[in-house]
Amino acid sequence: MLLCDIGNTSYYFYDGSSTQRYDIHDFVPEEITKQVCYINVNANVHQRLKELENWMDLGLHVRRDAYYETMGIDRIMACEAVEEGVVMDAGSAITVDVMQQGIYQGGFIYPGVKAMHNAYAALSSRLEYAFNFDIDLGKMPKNSQDAITYGFLATLKAAVMRFDAPLILTGGDASLLAPHFPDAVIDELLLFKGMQKIIDKGHLC
Amino acid sequence: MLLCDIGNTSYYFYDGSSTQRYDIHDFVPEEITKQVCYINVNANVHQRLKELENWMDLGLHVRRDAYYETMGIDRIMACEAVEEGVVMDAGSAITVDVMQQGIYQGGFIYPGVKAMHNAYAALSSRLEYAFNFDIDLGKMPKNSQDAITYGFLATLKAAVMRFDAPLILTGGDASLLAPHFPDAVIDELLLFKGMQKIIDKGHLC
Repeated sequence: MLLCDIGNTSYYFYDGSSTQRYDIHDFVPEEITKQVCYINVNANVHQRLKELENWMDLGLHVRRDAYYETMGIDRIMACEAVEEGVVMDAGSAITVDVMQQGIYQGGFIYPGVKAMHNAYAALSSRLEYAFNFDIDLGKMPKNSQDAITYGFLATLKAAVMRFDAPLILTGGDASLLAPHFPDAVIDELLLFKGMQKIIDKGHLC
Repeated sequence: MLLCDIGNTSYYFYDGSSTQRYDIHDFVPEEITKQVCYINVNANVHQRLKELENWMDLGLHVRRDAYYETMGIDRIMACEAVEEGVVMDAGSAITVDVMQQGIYQGGFIYPGVKAMHNAYAALSSRLEYAFNFDIDLGKMPKNSQDAITYGFLATLKAAVMRFDAPLILTGGDASLLAPHFPDAVIDELLLFKGMQKIIDKGHLC
């Protein structure tokens, strides 16, 4: 049995030991003969997957009403993996969600590294810097590069720290943010762990 | 004597009692016969102003080395007005600067309301909401509009509150942000107060 997480630009397989990333243009689900449990946010492949008997949509087996209506299934699945704590998923957007005793408390969405870089660059060419991820957020910035890096990172950090709960970091940019969240646990498999939990609970796949 | 703050899209006159905003396209400094003390961030009008005897550039009379090299003169001037506290200037960018005993401690730059709206909209059409400025930041969001509003506002607020110092709010979007910073003092004239202070100190104009 395989787990599969399908996005708009990539899809990921997890075989129980490692993950593999592929370009969405190479996605040919009909070629897979194994049983696959998947989540999908890509509207373009939705119908194709529904027609394949060996592909099971785990999104149909989640307590959706425990979350909110428009919340992405990938975000929900990461939360499902966590009983207690804050889940920060750093991708094109950075989502921050709070779980208490297995119950979703709410969460927020912040622009990701690239989106914030673009936001500063659109304001002024004088703010078109790469972020300085080596910045010391304990010191007030005194140059433009640090001033935007602090604006991006110290604000996010201050909001996340206020929850005073265990922090789990996942997503493609987790390792970039990690040095500024020294108490965080990095878990690149969080989403797949949530999927496995749904499978085990429902005796699926 | 008039004070004038010249930006890239607008310029503002202050006559000691009220401010007047004008479109930069209507800027004809040669027509003003009164003495004018100004600051200017607009490179297009720099040379014209230098040639006018009754226009005095206050940017030349500021202790620039007390700030940092690429810091905008408008931001410096707002800081000059403050002995102790945090200056938040909410315009196209939101700048947050810290003053202690009249000495600049550093500051950061955060995208303004429109820039952050655009950043979310560029991420996904599903995040293309106007911000909900009536949001209660004490509650965790459970819908997309509040999730991005919290991502924009609660992060900024958490970072600003950490300074634990008097907060002065200025700039075009000050009134939008003010309800979420109940202890802040709104001062739309802060920049002009800084200019006046420079004039008084140097016996200028």
